[in-house]
Amino acid sequence: MKVKIGGTSKEVRTLWREGNIIRLINQMELPHKFVITSLEDHMETADAIKGMVLRGAGAIGVAGGYGMAQAALEAQHMPLQEFNAYIDEAADRLRKTRPTAANLFRAVERCLSSARSGSVQERVKKVLAEADAVAEEDLEASRLIGEFGNALVSDGSRVLTHCNAGALAFIDYGTALSPIRFAHRDGKNVFVFVDETRPLCQGARLTAWELEQEGIPYAIIVDNAAGYFMRRGDVDMVIVGADRVAKNGDVANKIGTYEKAVVAKENDVPFYVAAPRMTFDMACENGEEIEIEERGPDEVRGAWGVDREGKPTRILISEEGANVRNPSFDVTPARYVTAFVTDVGILKPPYPNSIQKAYGILS
Amino acid sequence: MKVKIGGTSKEVRTLWREGNIIRLINQMELPHKFVITSLEDHMETADAIKGMVLRGAGAIGVAGGYGMAQAALEAQHMPLQEFNAYIDEAADRLRKTRPTAANLFRAVERCLSSARSGSVQERVKKVLAEADAVAEEDLEASRLIGEFGNALVSDGSRVLTHCNAGALAFIDYGTALSPIRFAHRDGKNVFVFVDETRPLCQGARLTAWELEQEGIPYAIIVDNAAGYFMRRGDVDMVIVGADRVAKNGDVANKIGTYEKAVVAKENDVPFYVAAPRMTFDMACENGEEIEIEERGPDEVRGAWGVDREGKPTRILISEEGANVRNPSFDVTPARYVTAFVTDVGILKPPYPNSIQKAYGILS
Repeated sequence: MKVKIGGTSKEVRTLWREGNIIRLINQMELPHKFVITSLEDHMETADAIKGMVLRGAGAIGVAGGYGMAQAALEAQHMPLQEFNAYIDEAADRLRKTRPTAANLFRAVERCLSSARSGSVQERVKKVLAEADAVAEEDLEASRLIGEFGNALVSDGSRVLTHCNAGALAFIDYGTALSPIRFAHRDGKNVFVFVDETRPLCQGARLTAWELEQEGIPYAIIVDNAAGYFMRRGDVDMVIVGADRVAKNGDVANKIGTYEKAVVAKENDVPFYVAAPRMTFDMACENGEEIEIEERGPDEVRGAWGVDREGKPTRILISEEGANVRNPSFDVTPARYVTAFVTDVGILKPPYPNSIQKAYGILS
Repeated sequence: MKVKIGGTSKEVRTLWREGNIIRLINQMELPHKFVITSLEDHMETADAIKGMVLRGAGAIGVAGGYGMAQAALEAQHMPLQEFNAYIDEAADRLRKTRPTAANLFRAVERCLSSARSGSVQERVKKVLAEADAVAEEDLEASRLIGEFGNALVSDGSRVLTHCNAGALAFIDYGTALSPIRFAHRDGKNVFVFVDETRPLCQGARLTAWELEQEGIPYAIIVDNAAGYFMRRGDVDMVIVGADRVAKNGDVANKIGTYEKAVVAKENDVPFYVAAPRMTFDMACENGEEIEIEERGPDEVRGAWGVDREGKPTRILISEEGANVRNPSFDVTPARYVTAFVTDVGILKPPYPNSIQKAYGILS
């Protein structure tokens, strides 16, 4: 992604590996400060994932793989048995950071499996190669989503998006934001309505920042205002990401996605879900099977940001002990999804046929 | 409304007049502190309206009338010509505080018209009587909305509301919250989902506080979560207030109301609008004629609350210069409204017939 650093615009990935060191954009500091944080060993990487210095399905998966690479390098001079014990323990530690992150488990598992034969030196090499492959596949999937999705974005399109399914949630490009980036780079005029996305405001903090860096025109709106703009005819399409897509096309994504989908349908605004093949869970029959996490009340009771002096600050909006319900995700039934934008092409209804076909060919 | 003060529960109005002094609940301090503020003259009252120490259509109207009463008392020993000039100037000052508040204009105008004949002493008396009448009519309208609306609320009802159409927006009871109060006082079990209502969070700050004081079970949710709970079947009815209702039943209300109405309809959840007859604007044909105010960007860029030490603090969530659109209201077409709960009864479709009938009888 483009990042403006000291007057010039540079290409930066969300995270990358330099030998045994992982460097990443510190998402806790955005949008107020652009800070590259270095993680010196796999323990620091685990802490960064847990502390949400990075977030987003793709980015967490890649960090998990890189963490395994760090662990392999840390253990490279140990005898085989100790090496194995060391990377097993590292895998455990990394998996426990975000217990619902499917990409994380998959990346860690891939690295671990790759280290099951050969000498320690050979195993180290294989883990590094696998970790780098996870990253490159993530990058390639986002790029392909952008290329396929670009075809849906006409010159002059006004797009609404929810949460941050941008470069910062992956290695680069993102899912929902990838087609917008490609359209913009092709010279199309694109305007983005950015839902702020309470309670954690990933839209206001991260999506707006990405668009600002890229020079794509946008406006942050409160989540309440999306329907207003759709009804006025100011929105040509909605594109969101997904945390998980069931076999039948039901979509679990950030809370509020369902409302936007319903209001989009009511106003004949196409509603697209951008997600790599990896996000489709063919073991999950439909949305009813997806358990929705309810998080703690403090996210809703207050808000995070910086005060007048730029100091990170939490404020309390409601009373300290106010009663709260805080579901983090919702499920949007497949019938609201105009099409899926994936790394294997655009999947249109009828679902699940198109999904199964795409998956069957490629799995 | 009930307010818990030092262990006991007292009945308090949003504002009241004690001779030439107006006392009111300071809404800038809620929910963190309960403070009664005194306004010593009509200039202070104008400043309080402008500074949003009180808000809500009904409360602003009553404050406008009370401000006229203060002005009349301030001028009571002046010769007639000076008295007239003084109250004309006061009326001007009060009207300018909130240029879109129809109730405010009406209240000020009523007080002014009442002072057009008789001696200064007689005129002062008439202004005081008119100002008090505005307050009593506001109270009575809210009470009647509560009594009529109570019939719609069954034992065990789970109600969703948006923004604050509570006692704090009027003299007491409120509009959307009035039926809930009456149902609760009748011993019915009622649970309220409170949309936090970004950007100013009147739901999280004011509605939750009112329900807490009254002992009515509630949960604050982010605006994004309303659809989630409706789809799960956890919401039996939606009740909101209105800023203005057109002749055809289109409703202008706080931004986000339209989304809730659409999602309610999609899930077969009844959607009620509680509003006194005063809020129906029979000179407004339909919602297309209602101009929507866009407010400044800072409300969306940040949030207000108290910091860890309880000090009132504003934080910035997005970047300082982030692009923002901030419509304050939206229009919900009449077809989404299951019924209007008014001070003259429940008005059901077809609209505009039921509205015109109610209005025709009583205007």
